[in-house]
Amino acid sequence: MSSRASSRLKQISTHLDSKPFLELNTPFSTERSARVEDDKGNRIRPKKVQNVNKEVAQFKKLAPEPPKKMSTQSSHPALLIPGPIEFDDAVLTSMSHYSESHVGQPFVNTFSEVLQNLRKLFVTKDPASQPFVISGSGTLGWDQVAANLVEPGDEVLVLHTGYFADSFADCFETYGVKATQLKAPIGDRPQLDEVEKALKEKEYKMLTVTHVDTSTGVLSEIKALSELVHRVSPETLVVVDGVCSVGSEEIRFDDWKLDAVLTASQKGIGCPAGLSIMMVSGRAIERFKARKTRPTSYFGSWKNWLPIMQNYEAKKASYFATPSPQLIHALDTSLKQILSRPIEDYWAAHKAASQKVKQAVADLGLKQLASKPENQATGMTAIYLPDGITPPHVLPTLLKKGVVFAGGLHKEIATKYIRFGHMGVSVTDPNRPDITKAIEALGQGLEEAGYKK
Amino acid sequence: MSSRASSRLKQISTHLDSKPFLELNTPFSTERSARVEDDKGNRIRPKKVQNVNKEVAQFKKLAPEPPKKMSTQSSHPALLIPGPIEFDDAVLTSMSHYSESHVGQPFVNTFSEVLQNLRKLFVTKDPASQPFVISGSGTLGWDQVAANLVEPGDEVLVLHTGYFADSFADCFETYGVKATQLKAPIGDRPQLDEVEKALKEKEYKMLTVTHVDTSTGVLSEIKALSELVHRVSPETLVVVDGVCSVGSEEIRFDDWKLDAVLTASQKGIGCPAGLSIMMVSGRAIERFKARKTRPTSYFGSWKNWLPIMQNYEAKKASYFATPSPQLIHALDTSLKQILSRPIEDYWAAHKAASQKVKQAVADLGLKQLASKPENQATGMTAIYLPDGITPPHVLPTLLKKGVVFAGGLHKEIATKYIRFGHMGVSVTDPNRPDITKAIEALGQGLEEAGYKK
Repeated sequence: MSSRASSRLKQISTHLDSKPFLELNTPFSTERSARVEDDKGNRIRPKKVQNVNKEVAQFKKLAPEPPKKMSTQSSHPALLIPGPIEFDDAVLTSMSHYSESHVGQPFVNTFSEVLQNLRKLFVTKDPASQPFVISGSGTLGWDQVAANLVEPGDEVLVLHTGYFADSFADCFETYGVKATQLKAPIGDRPQLDEVEKALKEKEYKMLTVTHVDTSTGVLSEIKALSELVHRVSPETLVVVDGVCSVGSEEIRFDDWKLDAVLTASQKGIGCPAGLSIMMVSGRAIERFKARKTRPTSYFGSWKNWLPIMQNYEAKKASYFATPSPQLIHALDTSLKQILSRPIEDYWAAHKAASQKVKQAVADLGLKQLASKPENQATGMTAIYLPDGITPPHVLPTLLKKGVVFAGGLHKEIATKYIRFGHMGVSVTDPNRPDITKAIEALGQGLEEAGYKK
Repeated sequence: MSSRASSRLKQISTHLDSKPFLELNTPFSTERSARVEDDKGNRIRPKKVQNVNKEVAQFKKLAPEPPKKMSTQSSHPALLIPGPIEFDDAVLTSMSHYSESHVGQPFVNTFSEVLQNLRKLFVTKDPASQPFVISGSGTLGWDQVAANLVEPGDEVLVLHTGYFADSFADCFETYGVKATQLKAPIGDRPQLDEVEKALKEKEYKMLTVTHVDTSTGVLSEIKALSELVHRVSPETLVVVDGVCSVGSEEIRFDDWKLDAVLTASQKGIGCPAGLSIMMVSGRAIERFKARKTRPTSYFGSWKNWLPIMQNYEAKKASYFATPSPQLIHALDTSLKQILSRPIEDYWAAHKAASQKVKQAVADLGLKQLASKPENQATGMTAIYLPDGITPPHVLPTLLKKGVVFAGGLHKEIATKYIRFGHMGVSVTDPNRPDITKAIEALGQGLEEAGYKK
């Protein structure tokens, strides 16, 4: 272990010391200078962006020419924030499904298909894996993890790449679980050697990692992290916050030996917001069943939900709390669209769009928050604005040009950057001009704000 | 206090002794013989059903003739279960609203209108009252109450009129709150003298009452209960589970001095499932702010949601967890429809339909679970089947005739009764034949099953 890695480890901090009781839950994080040298003092060169042209070509070949039809949606600006995203017409039409009984066979059959298709989306064939779909938001996934998979007093290691790790840690503390955060500078992610050292210092019941932090666009290396955990701390559960990654990033639940991946409906999955979606390993379910204390949430308790999900998947009517039939229908439609081709094609379409966006950002002379190609998310790009230009200088112009981007969400630098989401139909439907239009609008908007490359 | 009332009080029971860890959450309750005599031993005669004709006539007069249009919904059986209910075309169309940013001004404005209209729906003008709308289900309302308004170790009194009190008590226990249930025989409700005695025996931080228990169709007397609590135990918060009552039953939040009424979107409010909706008094919010311990839920914590709801209502963008824009649009549409006329008209339409249904049930020679006219819900009717006929003998026939009823949901008697929901557009839209068709189908279905009056 080098002294640099060791000094970085000193920055491990426990979350939540003395926040005011009713403080608005706002983004905050720890800022450090970016790591530009390796442990031997050599300057770190960015790795070459992977060439995805081959995959893209394959995707294009497979893609059937979609019918040239008018959208059923009213005219509106293209929503290109990192979620909610633009939705397909058929998905939105499913939201208007006539009312059905939540325990009637037609709806139960649809719910069963959704749960089975989630297994395909997460690439798990292990029958012990357990999908959950519950009315709520991505945040409810944190409650499910904190309430069901750990017990009060347990220690968890939270890898921090932005705002959402702070919140996840806050959630753990709510449930009496001790969350230790391993932080990285803004735009970077904790390094494997740092994670290894942290894992060896204490017995953690769980490691959590934000696959893509929506506040920074930083991508974590899930496969390598999971290998590391299984090697040095095999009893530690590997939990992935995939809210901004499921669909747009490669995830192989079984192959990567993940214990839980939580997500929401409104990002890479392409279904309106309102659902907490999760895949849990057989090992994690056993850990849940072996717990000594009762889960301290009622609505988020798998004690209540596990039999319901198992019944729904087996096409048996079952009741704990009323699901939203309309959202389940929309999710069903979206999953069927995604899975009508190999999931690799869906990922490849996202990679192609991401490469195009990142190239355009570089061509404009702009930098991303995510400092290295290997830690840049596929489904979104967080872009530093030129000096002197803030989001209010640019976002209204973009809106006038028919494009909605998001402002910053990282407390210390919120006014210095904007976020561009590129997921779902905006990148998979070749008839949609969303991405091209957004890139053009960004260039024009900056120019109108006085920026010259 | 009579000896009978006193003997009934012995049946106060604390919930949840030793259920198996992963038992499916199924309905159960305490059954006792119905109370047919008063405390002096005289036979209790049913009170005369209130004459609602005057109100109904007024409602009809006010109702504009709706356009004779075809529904935009696909042909489907009329869903007449006690929630989800049939939805208006415009509400379902709002579910397909194009994607919007959850922090963009157009959506924030809509959310603000929803929160303001909820004040009208609950009939509260006190600016200290606080509405909440969170993605989830009615059940999440229990978590909000148990996590925010009481603290571990506190005592609460849960009035029991069916399955849902058992579950609410279960939720309290999850949060370390001691729930004492005051039970009544199936079809009846705890009497005011019993409640008074219970309140005097222990210092309860809160009394909860299910306004309409969906498993039995029993109506509780909220106004009288609240008066009682304020008289004999003024520090006790009055919390109403209004999941199956808000919209279909009269509720006057300020006048009745209620502290919290929780509900869901898919019943009397006429919006698809997926939202936990709540109104909380200024007194309860102060109680929340004065708590000594942190709420032990994250997703349900008002620490997180209170500033968000206040910001949304003030039309300021704010973020804790992503709401569902589509569901909020549907709720907005539904509330605007309901509030386009005095709320009393909406209640009167439900009373008229309820009277029609209950008369038809009596004409068929059938009995309701709710044993007395004054404790029968307005928005639903739980109907005992004739001897020898079970739900599977009747429900499939009803479905063939285009009507969906619900089976029983009360463990001991689940096979002995069916439930008929009559809320929302099925009772307020004079063009819909739902109720008439359902009454006819019920008579025919029973006849085909061999029943003769």
